[in-house]
Amino acid sequence: MKDHIKHFKTILDDKGVLLPEDGIDGYVSGWRGEIGSTPCVLRPTSSQETSQIIAYCAAHNLHLIPQSGNTGMVANSVPDESGEQIVLSTERMNKIIDIDPINKCAHVGAGVRLSALNDALAEYHLSFPIDLGSDPCLGGMVSTNTGGSRYLKYRGVRENLMGVKAVLADHDGTVIDDLKPLHKNNTGLDIKQLFVGTGGLFGIVTEVMVRLSPLPAQSATALLIPRDMDAAAALLIEIEKSCHNYLSAFEGMSHNAMQRALSHNPALTNPFGQDDVPHYAILLELSRSWPEREAEQPLNDVLENILAELWERDNAPLENALIGAPERLWALRHSISEGVQKSGKLFAFDISFKRGDFFRFREAMIERLKTHHPELTLCDFGHLGDGGAHFALVIDRDDTRASVPSYEKTVRNFINDAVVLEFGGSYSAEHGLGRKTEEAYAKYTPDEVKALTHAIKTAIAPIPVGTIKI
Amino acid sequence: MKDHIKHFKTILDDKGVLLPEDGIDGYVSGWRGEIGSTPCVLRPTSSQETSQIIAYCAAHNLHLIPQSGNTGMVANSVPDESGEQIVLSTERMNKIIDIDPINKCAHVGAGVRLSALNDALAEYHLSFPIDLGSDPCLGGMVSTNTGGSRYLKYRGVRENLMGVKAVLADHDGTVIDDLKPLHKNNTGLDIKQLFVGTGGLFGIVTEVMVRLSPLPAQSATALLIPRDMDAAAALLIEIEKSCHNYLSAFEGMSHNAMQRALSHNPALTNPFGQDDVPHYAILLELSRSWPEREAEQPLNDVLENILAELWERDNAPLENALIGAPERLWALRHSISEGVQKSGKLFAFDISFKRGDFFRFREAMIERLKTHHPELTLCDFGHLGDGGAHFALVIDRDDTRASVPSYEKTVRNFINDAVVLEFGGSYSAEHGLGRKTEEAYAKYTPDEVKALTHAIKTAIAPIPVGTIKI
Repeated sequence: MKDHIKHFKTILDDKGVLLPEDGIDGYVSGWRGEIGSTPCVLRPTSSQETSQIIAYCAAHNLHLIPQSGNTGMVANSVPDESGEQIVLSTERMNKIIDIDPINKCAHVGAGVRLSALNDALAEYHLSFPIDLGSDPCLGGMVSTNTGGSRYLKYRGVRENLMGVKAVLADHDGTVIDDLKPLHKNNTGLDIKQLFVGTGGLFGIVTEVMVRLSPLPAQSATALLIPRDMDAAAALLIEIEKSCHNYLSAFEGMSHNAMQRALSHNPALTNPFGQDDVPHYAILLELSRSWPEREAEQPLNDVLENILAELWERDNAPLENALIGAPERLWALRHSISEGVQKSGKLFAFDISFKRGDFFRFREAMIERLKTHHPELTLCDFGHLGDGGAHFALVIDRDDTRASVPSYEKTVRNFINDAVVLEFGGSYSAEHGLGRKTEEAYAKYTPDEVKALTHAIKTAIAPIPVGTIKI
Repeated sequence: MKDHIKHFKTILDDKGVLLPEDGIDGYVSGWRGEIGSTPCVLRPTSSQETSQIIAYCAAHNLHLIPQSGNTGMVANSVPDESGEQIVLSTERMNKIIDIDPINKCAHVGAGVRLSALNDALAEYHLSFPIDLGSDPCLGGMVSTNTGGSRYLKYRGVRENLMGVKAVLADHDGTVIDDLKPLHKNNTGLDIKQLFVGTGGLFGIVTEVMVRLSPLPAQSATALLIPRDMDAAAALLIEIEKSCHNYLSAFEGMSHNAMQRALSHNPALTNPFGQDDVPHYAILLELSRSWPEREAEQPLNDVLENILAELWERDNAPLENALIGAPERLWALRHSISEGVQKSGKLFAFDISFKRGDFFRFREAMIERLKTHHPELTLCDFGHLGDGGAHFALVIDRDDTRASVPSYEKTVRNFINDAVVLEFGGSYSAEHGLGRKTEEAYAKYTPDEVKALTHAIKTAIAPIPVGTIKI
């Protein structure tokens, strides 16, 4: 390895190679607590340097783990414990290369943080509208194909990606330049799709061209308490009927999830009043891209009228509704992930269904958990508007089963079998693939899809890169 | 061929094999007048039959041309003149298999017409919102990745496709079932992308799962006459600022294009008044998915106010504007394609640019055409909102050059070189690839993209299918 490191220092500048003695804990520790080990961290500043690194690693059988913001949920950006995998961080490719407010696109390095891009876009009243709890970098967002809380309006990375520059995981480290800033371009196989949601399997994204959306200038936000779970599903359809053009979030939060957010974060105001946490709540957001206009009904009034109409119906689907300051209502939503994680040992499932199927699944699983796993508490939340759910199961940290790998495996199979085989859902809605989902990939991917992916990988990018084995 | 036809009759039923004597002109004649020849037309009713056909053709070196609605613009669905290419029509796979109004998706056979799907969706107030002048079938829409007039709101087929079933162009005719009706599903390489916009290169799409949108319940439509071409580009930005959530079409129409539509179709009312055709017009459409509500400003009033504000500015970008019955204004837009085509020999260019670049290109080309090709009249129209343009050049039918292939080639290079090499645009915005664009593909595709496409084709779908050579 010494010789390899020596060679990397000829490719990269002074700051390009970090060794364990330089303090690299942050590069080997993942978001969900996984810890690996690496002989060095490589920090190229260009596609060309990245290409030289890949070609060298290919020639010497070295395994690279690309790392972007390192905020992945499924152990997809940190090395394993072998000590042999080399981290390649894109963090120095962090230039905002161009913002084009007329064409509504931005060209950035893979190491640009989402927050940095959105800060730069604010003066143009534009945004890259993927709304996440974490602050990833753009390259990792492509590799993960992130979705988030406003997916039902803006969709995910795939739908907002115009192009990439990437270094292929082949013997030459071929640089693929597919960066045209065109909204419509229909000239053959869409090569960039190889790099979307594939966790570095086909190579390393170094530059990204994204489509931008107008920054909302008005919003109206409410917490809805549905009469029951059937009503929660029905509310989505009713809200879409009455204000589809404005709908930008429809997020579900279970009693347990809200409870844990409030317990963990005492600074959080309980919007329902002290000690009162409803059985379920939906965070509804409407937004418009233009400022208020005199002749136009204010968005809060639109929302109030719609909710009043739903409330006054016979057999009303709404038990209650609170229209409130957006920041306060979103603070509750955004505190859930951490609150749940801190409340015990978490088994997180990032699943999705046909819209309408989630509550059927949820009801069935609550019954089954009572029988088979009464030690687990369900603290689910997530993206009802697009059929996605974060099905969080928590076990007391003191429970001896909490850290037993075979127990976790049993729980994973128990849930994922029901999601995929019984309810036709997905075991990975938006977190993508990584070490934590590789067993599920092996188990639930149709044979012909696996074979095709494998054949394409072998044909064009045969060098092993990233955490995913296929 | 006799033996082959005999064999096809063992795979398919009575109506499954059509011979020239059965009257098959419709299957060998393309939308833009190209005429080929075929020994037979195969009409499978299932993926299984399609698979058997592909496997047989692979074993016997027979070349299949998949044909869906046969409305392609670039000779991508008809056989060539060799008489050796066999047409495989998907027209009997025309069942609407499922409509799910809760999940907002539809599962259909590849041979279902867009109009048939939308007719069936109307009762649910839903639509598959790709708005086209023609009426293609869903399988061909996937293979072409069609865009259309409301792309700036709904995007194209790629962004509204949930899944496909397809038969791979390999020796076994492997059936790929990638039909999960999930809005969010992030479980590895997105296999369906192989079949989007690739004209059958990788195989034949037999079933399609699409995402649906609410049918608009209100719309407001206007024709805008910009002060000049700079103002036309600026108007888009202004309109987006003031009503992005409502914007569903922003279509440009040149004087010559409108003139030819009106001349060709005497039933068409000239919305500008008899004999008065402006230098340029923009068809602007706003829409909402819900019916009018008492407290809400009507959409026509929203539109009027926005236009009034633009009109009253110093140096107003608007010379004039007409708010009118949507059907009448769209009739003009929809008559252009045929009007232009019938007015002479047409050289059609389906091009796109960064938004904002089209008018720079247009101005430059008007000057160059005067010098180098005064015999050509520019009758452009298209999708300003997404940077797309149908750059239609017409030459008098009596001009001796009109049907000389080398002349057409000169014109194609003259335009496409400027589009791609000089202005960084695309030679195919939304019509996809076919015989008419294969020279452009060869000339303008980056070598590494060509090599990757070729390597993937060779690895997974080595049997030649379709009109595209790569």
